[in-house]
Amino acid sequence: MQSVNLAATLALITEYWSPKAVGSVNGLHVKLVKLKGEFVWHAHEVEDELFLVLEGTLRMQCRDGDLSVGKGEFLVVPHGTEHRPVADDEVHVLLIEPASTVNTGTAGGERTRAVEWF
Amino acid sequence: MQSVNLAATLALITEYWSPKAVGSVNGLHVKLVKLKGEFVWHAHEVEDELFLVLEGTLRMQCRDGDLSVGKGEFLVVPHGTEHRPVADDEVHVLLIEPASTVNTGTAGGERTRAVEWF
Repeated sequence: MQSVNLAATLALITEYWSPKAVGSVNGLHVKLVKLKGEFVWHAHEVEDELFLVLEGTLRMQCRDGDLSVGKGEFLVVPHGTEHRPVADDEVHVLLIEPASTVNTGTAGGERTRAVEWF
Repeated sequence: MQSVNLAATLALITEYWSPKAVGSVNGLHVKLVKLKGEFVWHAHEVEDELFLVLEGTLRMQCRDGDLSVGKGEFLVVPHGTEHRPVADDEVHVLLIEPASTVNTGTAGGERTRAVEWF
């Protein structure tokens, strides 16, 4: 067993929108990601996705409006829900989601990234 | 969908060692808990348990020594691992664990608390 320091690990991340796995709990992965700019609209067929904002303010676009998620707040996007994360300024996020989750969900495309372990 | 503010929710918690459920993601629960003092030695038969420290420093006693988990750090205690959380001063923790997890694990006893939803 070993504890993981979030800020120290985030400092090693150089690419935006590329989640890194840093832990595993009951089949879900804990991932860290830096966001800046706009992502693509997508949904996950079977995976819920938890976004815990560690720095900055995340704007989560949904089909019925935007949700603002500030530092120290979390949001769970249920499976099947179309969403597009937007980071007007840099945002640091801790994700909790199944190991199988692909960052672009069923949308796919050039923004898709394989998740590496840190 | 609605975001949850961790500090505002923690401010409503008045009892130590009594986790409150504040979210659900793929069958796991997100819980918030305030700790102070020593808990009981226990293990969870099938549930891993993630401790993310939001305030203070958690001392996790394990059979092979103590682990210190500071603010902004997390620790996953794998199922079957005996542990005893100790908070020398007040500690605020976000837990990620299966809905089925009992705070005292297989040890049971008077420190057992039913988890309420906030």
